[in-house]
Amino acid sequence: MSFDLLKTDSATRARLGRLHLPNGTVQTPVFMPVGTQGTVKTMTPHELRDIGVEMMVCNTYHLYLRPGHETVRQAGGLSRFIGWHRPILTDSGGYQVYSLAPLRAISEEGVRFQSHIDGSRHFFTPELVVQIQQALDSDVVMCLDVCPPYPVSQEDAAKAVDLTQVWAERCKAAWTGIQESRNPGIEGHSNPRILESSSPVLFAIIQGATYPELRQRSAEQLVALDLPGYAIGGLCLGEPSATTYEMVETCTELMPANKPRYLMGAGYPEDIIAAVNRGVDMFDCVLPTRNGRTGTAFTSLGRVTIRNARHSQDNTPLDPNCTCYACRDFTRAYLRHLFIASEVLGPHLLTLHNIHFFITLMSSIRRSLEQGSFREWSQQFLSSYQQTKEES
Amino acid sequence: MSFDLLKTDSATRARLGRLHLPNGTVQTPVFMPVGTQGTVKTMTPHELRDIGVEMMVCNTYHLYLRPGHETVRQAGGLSRFIGWHRPILTDSGGYQVYSLAPLRAISEEGVRFQSHIDGSRHFFTPELVVQIQQALDSDVVMCLDVCPPYPVSQEDAAKAVDLTQVWAERCKAAWTGIQESRNPGIEGHSNPRILESSSPVLFAIIQGATYPELRQRSAEQLVALDLPGYAIGGLCLGEPSATTYEMVETCTELMPANKPRYLMGAGYPEDIIAAVNRGVDMFDCVLPTRNGRTGTAFTSLGRVTIRNARHSQDNTPLDPNCTCYACRDFTRAYLRHLFIASEVLGPHLLTLHNIHFFITLMSSIRRSLEQGSFREWSQQFLSSYQQTKEES
Repeated sequence: MSFDLLKTDSATRARLGRLHLPNGTVQTPVFMPVGTQGTVKTMTPHELRDIGVEMMVCNTYHLYLRPGHETVRQAGGLSRFIGWHRPILTDSGGYQVYSLAPLRAISEEGVRFQSHIDGSRHFFTPELVVQIQQALDSDVVMCLDVCPPYPVSQEDAAKAVDLTQVWAERCKAAWTGIQESRNPGIEGHSNPRILESSSPVLFAIIQGATYPELRQRSAEQLVALDLPGYAIGGLCLGEPSATTYEMVETCTELMPANKPRYLMGAGYPEDIIAAVNRGVDMFDCVLPTRNGRTGTAFTSLGRVTIRNARHSQDNTPLDPNCTCYACRDFTRAYLRHLFIASEVLGPHLLTLHNIHFFITLMSSIRRSLEQGSFREWSQQFLSSYQQTKEES
Repeated sequence: MSFDLLKTDSATRARLGRLHLPNGTVQTPVFMPVGTQGTVKTMTPHELRDIGVEMMVCNTYHLYLRPGHETVRQAGGLSRFIGWHRPILTDSGGYQVYSLAPLRAISEEGVRFQSHIDGSRHFFTPELVVQIQQALDSDVVMCLDVCPPYPVSQEDAAKAVDLTQVWAERCKAAWTGIQESRNPGIEGHSNPRILESSSPVLFAIIQGATYPELRQRSAEQLVALDLPGYAIGGLCLGEPSATTYEMVETCTELMPANKPRYLMGAGYPEDIIAAVNRGVDMFDCVLPTRNGRTGTAFTSLGRVTIRNARHSQDNTPLDPNCTCYACRDFTRAYLRHLFIASEVLGPHLLTLHNIHFFITLMSSIRRSLEQGSFREWSQQFLSSYQQTKEES
């Protein structure tokens, strides 16, 4: 991996960059749709590529349980297995263990949990999670972290920070060991990636809940490990937006300028813009896909609930200002019919539109950064977008 | 509409043709995927077009109930409403009333039924069914028929033939009335289609169950109405294949050579080939879509049940001889994973593959007809296909 910081905005802390990864180059700030089980729900990889998606997030916890990382390794890695020939970041699985698995128990050694699918018992250690992601052959591998829910006491948040740090050190050691055994030297090694100086990389995750001093401690300790990139975890869990933004700023102030910064699980367009404003480069969120499936569209006119009866005879597009396939070829009346008739093309087209909306948002952000007009652009976007949060 | 009969095979009764319809030209023999509710389940119109689908079947009964034909009329017709800019044939709804609706009652006047969705009461007359399809603006409109189940007594089958005949006469009268009121003369009319001599058309449906003399009577009576095309209904309902083929032959012998012939609800590749052999031009069936959704693929190596555990590590394509997107970019192991993980991309990709299989089958049939080698081609296809009905 290498990261080119092309420009830092003069009026804000926003950055324009380029991230070179084994499966391709990504323009930042980037939004990564979530393909939890190795598929962005309802979408083909072909469609994702066509609407300009450059990178996707998959999930270690889910892929470890089903189909199993050895199956993916045998298939030649995740990118080949899922037919997505662009970069993939895999989440470590920590968040899913805490949010999905019943009967989980965290110890110094790792986290014991039962599968949410069949109740089978498993034990994730920092080393195993790195090995799984190495088998998946992700472009960006995430350290196992401890992600407390919101709200959490300062004492528990501090414990999470400490264990996250110890685990990040163990992840780094395990990762370094794997890389050295795979690439003993330039001559005679079997991995052509090193020749392109474009190897997969390990990112650590800053925790600390909503406590600025814990965020600082976590950021400083992890930065000292000198990893290729850093994420901000444990936010967007229900805390007030002002708190999210304050924590993001606390972290980004301490994160190295020459390395990519990833805010996990954000979010709404306003959250993405606020975080870009504070120097974040990478985003992922289930919002466009989950809302698409349940019938809510993000549009330039505000959010649209497509099942609403007032769309039943509406022969206008979902978003008159959008150029996606759903808006070019179909009307609100038809999209509503698909949802009412339980036809999967409905969720599919709304998901496609929503991802297109987020991808277009990011390219508008990048264009404004190129032109040196990010602050003006974002003020203008937010005033018109917030005025129409729910279409009236 | 016009129908060009390009060639009749010298060794069989198979025909090569071209059907000109308001929304485009269709090469025959043609397979029409079924888009019951105005969508071929899981597929985008864009994908259907890309794999070479030329015409689709939609369903009057379903679209009448939801979203309602007036909604579709207001949207500018079905083709525009569903974003499918090629020809559409609408089934009359008779079959669905008999197979889906509870508490149906057939009288001389029409058929009374309750909606399978909400129990609401409705009454289909031949005239109403024609009016609905006119509102849908289908390229090919089907007469309301009486389609008895299999098996049925000769007495009941004869009654169905008689009522089907009376209703076809009423459909023709209603249809003629509508066309005349829409196109009072060449000058000054508002429908540009008449200028292209490419108007929508009405087909009648031959009934008679498995009784050759009833089939003959139905065919002769309906042919006397001089409609632009004819369908064979009431077959592929569980009767032995030999009976199906015998009935098809009985009908096609009496059907006009210069008009398209449509076998409703067929079917398996072997049934399609047998019917082409007996002079049928048009086919529709839910088989590729329904089997795709439940995880069964039609392949050149026989049928594949993708959930089978033996595919779990299989990194070969679904069908090594297929060029569709599902076979080009994905493996059996991944497709199985999608089904096991309940990801909608699984049914989507298997449906895409299955429709591609049927479309390729039809283009192979047409090519063999062009080359005068249909008999040899079909013998070769069937011997290799039947040897591998279930992949071993």
